[in-house]
Amino acid sequence: MIEPKTLKGFRDYLPEVMIPRERMMEVARNVYRQYGFVPIDTPALEYLEILTGKGSDETERQLYRFEDHGGRQVGMRFDLTVPLARFVAQHHAQLGLPFKRYHIAPVWRGEAPQAGRYREFVQCDFDTIGTESVAADIETALVMHDLIVAVGVTEFKIHINHRQVLTGLLEKLGLLDASVPVLRALDKLAKTSVEAVSAEMQQAAGLTAAQAAEVLTLASVKGSNAEILQQLATIVAGNARGEAGLKRLSDMVAGLAAAGVPESRFELDVSIARGLDYYTGVVFETYLDALPGIGSICSGGRYDNLAGMYTKQHLPGIGASLGLDRLLAALEKLGKLPASKTTVPILVAFFDPDRLNDYLKISRTIREAGFGCELYPEPKKLGAQLKYADQKGFRIAVIAGSQELERGVVQLKDLQRKISSDVAWGNDPSELLRGLANMLQLNEGNLVV
Amino acid sequence: MIEPKTLKGFRDYLPEVMIPRERMMEVARNVYRQYGFVPIDTPALEYLEILTGKGSDETERQLYRFEDHGGRQVGMRFDLTVPLARFVAQHHAQLGLPFKRYHIAPVWRGEAPQAGRYREFVQCDFDTIGTESVAADIETALVMHDLIVAVGVTEFKIHINHRQVLTGLLEKLGLLDASVPVLRALDKLAKTSVEAVSAEMQQAAGLTAAQAAEVLTLASVKGSNAEILQQLATIVAGNARGEAGLKRLSDMVAGLAAAGVPESRFELDVSIARGLDYYTGVVFETYLDALPGIGSICSGGRYDNLAGMYTKQHLPGIGASLGLDRLLAALEKLGKLPASKTTVPILVAFFDPDRLNDYLKISRTIREAGFGCELYPEPKKLGAQLKYADQKGFRIAVIAGSQELERGVVQLKDLQRKISSDVAWGNDPSELLRGLANMLQLNEGNLVV
Repeated sequence: MIEPKTLKGFRDYLPEVMIPRERMMEVARNVYRQYGFVPIDTPALEYLEILTGKGSDETERQLYRFEDHGGRQVGMRFDLTVPLARFVAQHHAQLGLPFKRYHIAPVWRGEAPQAGRYREFVQCDFDTIGTESVAADIETALVMHDLIVAVGVTEFKIHINHRQVLTGLLEKLGLLDASVPVLRALDKLAKTSVEAVSAEMQQAAGLTAAQAAEVLTLASVKGSNAEILQQLATIVAGNARGEAGLKRLSDMVAGLAAAGVPESRFELDVSIARGLDYYTGVVFETYLDALPGIGSICSGGRYDNLAGMYTKQHLPGIGASLGLDRLLAALEKLGKLPASKTTVPILVAFFDPDRLNDYLKISRTIREAGFGCELYPEPKKLGAQLKYADQKGFRIAVIAGSQELERGVVQLKDLQRKISSDVAWGNDPSELLRGLANMLQLNEGNLVV
Repeated sequence: MIEPKTLKGFRDYLPEVMIPRERMMEVARNVYRQYGFVPIDTPALEYLEILTGKGSDETERQLYRFEDHGGRQVGMRFDLTVPLARFVAQHHAQLGLPFKRYHIAPVWRGEAPQAGRYREFVQCDFDTIGTESVAADIETALVMHDLIVAVGVTEFKIHINHRQVLTGLLEKLGLLDASVPVLRALDKLAKTSVEAVSAEMQQAAGLTAAQAAEVLTLASVKGSNAEILQQLATIVAGNARGEAGLKRLSDMVAGLAAAGVPESRFELDVSIARGLDYYTGVVFETYLDALPGIGSICSGGRYDNLAGMYTKQHLPGIGASLGLDRLLAALEKLGKLPASKTTVPILVAFFDPDRLNDYLKISRTIREAGFGCELYPEPKKLGAQLKYADQKGFRIAVIAGSQELERGVVQLKDLQRKISSDVAWGNDPSELLRGLANMLQLNEGNLVV
């Protein structure tokens, strides 16, 4: 006998976890599609050189790699960005540009196990490749916005910054060469004091106290988006790079307003930088008002050139990624993730073995009306079936013994309100269907999202 | 520069392939859910011993295996049945029985490359575990039926047989020991002559000509389902095993009729056996009337004990699997797979850079009304955008230059019928939305499934 267990660092998704997870992926797909993003898929396995080309040491160490049956060095993808780069480099002539794709798929990293982190996880990415237009930047923010609204959260903020505003300021101050340690220090502004950040800039980046103070004027940039734009204009004035970045931010603020997004949902925020090597333009992070501590649940930004490793074709783009696990955890904390082990609201009980064909007909009638239902798979005492219904979270049981069927009725039992009523059942299904519709409506507050 | 290419034996899914593929998986999920099947997921990687426990030599040879970062021997799953067995053995107390799950996920096999076969493919399985009830057998056939109807095919047949009818006949003839070679020969009945099968039975299984003739009375079983049941009753009469199998078939025929499935859609067929080591009860295959040659597009059957390798818990079950790639290929041949590179019908053109905010507002209005639309990501000549729209398969372009917007109108262009009309656009979106709805309705025959 072999002990049944999941591989260390991996996990099974049981139905009560997989049901909301799958719905969340559907919500994401639907929002992506509404904007004209199209799905692609790429293999789980790639040639090792494709994966390690640009990888950091960290990435390389975490990579699942091996030799395949043909002696090829292969690896399991560790993100969806490297495969996207390879994909667009390989197919751009056929795809046409601009190209907008979404990709929802698992990736694998042999990380050291941590609480809540697994070696297999799903990424939900969307990107617009082959354009530098601000329209793509704005629509990326709109998709992020619509995603969060679509899962039922209304109180959140998309933080927006532009890499060139920061770089422009540093250039203006003659500090471009020190930008990596300066920005690394600046990134800590949200978590520590201005004094500590200033000290780090002086120590790690060799700035004078006056230079650090100049950079830290950024920390005082506050107010409405319009006010922030005004303060930044003064800060970057005279620097072409900074002014260009600021113009993008200003266009974005106007565009998001034109598209009807409430001002309360997005906020210019000079403190976010996000992986400065990769992003070159606008950057995004998204925080839930009720749970700022869990971190950004949807992040992304603009990059200069997606696939320089694989093609000479210049491929600028912008994209973002929904943090599926983090968002699910947040919804659970917010009580917005109803626990259910079933995808349908109705259980048809099966307790008279001779009446199976009646139950099949009842089930069929219910399904054809567009309600899903489960027919309990085998004849059993009613008590056991109702216990099963309770455990799984069904809302209604349809109960019919021989006596009921002979009288031409079936019983509908509202499992939450513990109320039963008989409805006529024979050649005309309308009373049954009306009865179900009424019961479902009465407890629709408990509907699974 | 690294050459961008997919690993040998693997493929990318470009949007025009992935769009129908993803829709097909959605159709499958929706049908599975309607019957109360719930989703699960399991890791791509398992301990090697889990995967190889019951594997054939063939399976073992094809397995992608390696040592992980912790020195564990691991492998990539080659089907969804072994992970299901491990999963149910591990979690059955928490899951409760009966347990009905679906699982749609990729699997990997290092097969020798063949035309149309890849080393990574998606399986779409559903199973009912923990019951021997005929109700589960009937509902499995109903799900298969509804799946095919849901993808838009009405002319097909689900072939149904029962393993014990065959075994019962062999037992009655004292040929139980020869059942493997006899059934292997019998399996060829559809493809060759009765004489050839008889010869193989005599040579490979050591039957006399008279015994072979007795077994081959099965080949003469023909007619309506009721007639076939009658003929089989005579053939297995007196053998308990055969009679039990026949009773199941008879119950299934009655149950499918009670559930309203047209008799033309299912057919008792003594010639199908399907992997005789594994299946022990009813077996299914599904053939499209128009394309019998492509083989079964949805197959399955009942098994005695799912997870005997991993648990002492006796876990009988029944399940089936949709052949996603085969069905997609069939739909393409039947012209039921509209080619489209977009998931939305409407393209909002972007050709006046100063009017981006108007285009954003128009796009938002269209999306809020429930139509998807793509805003072309950058300002460009109208001709180039209309070419893009044609290539991608958009049905309507919304066109508005400064002149139109100043006049308070936008132009709707039906890209298939090459007709344009102006609609009012200002504070009231109703004329725009009505115009779009009309145009979409007029060419709805071209709607993507």
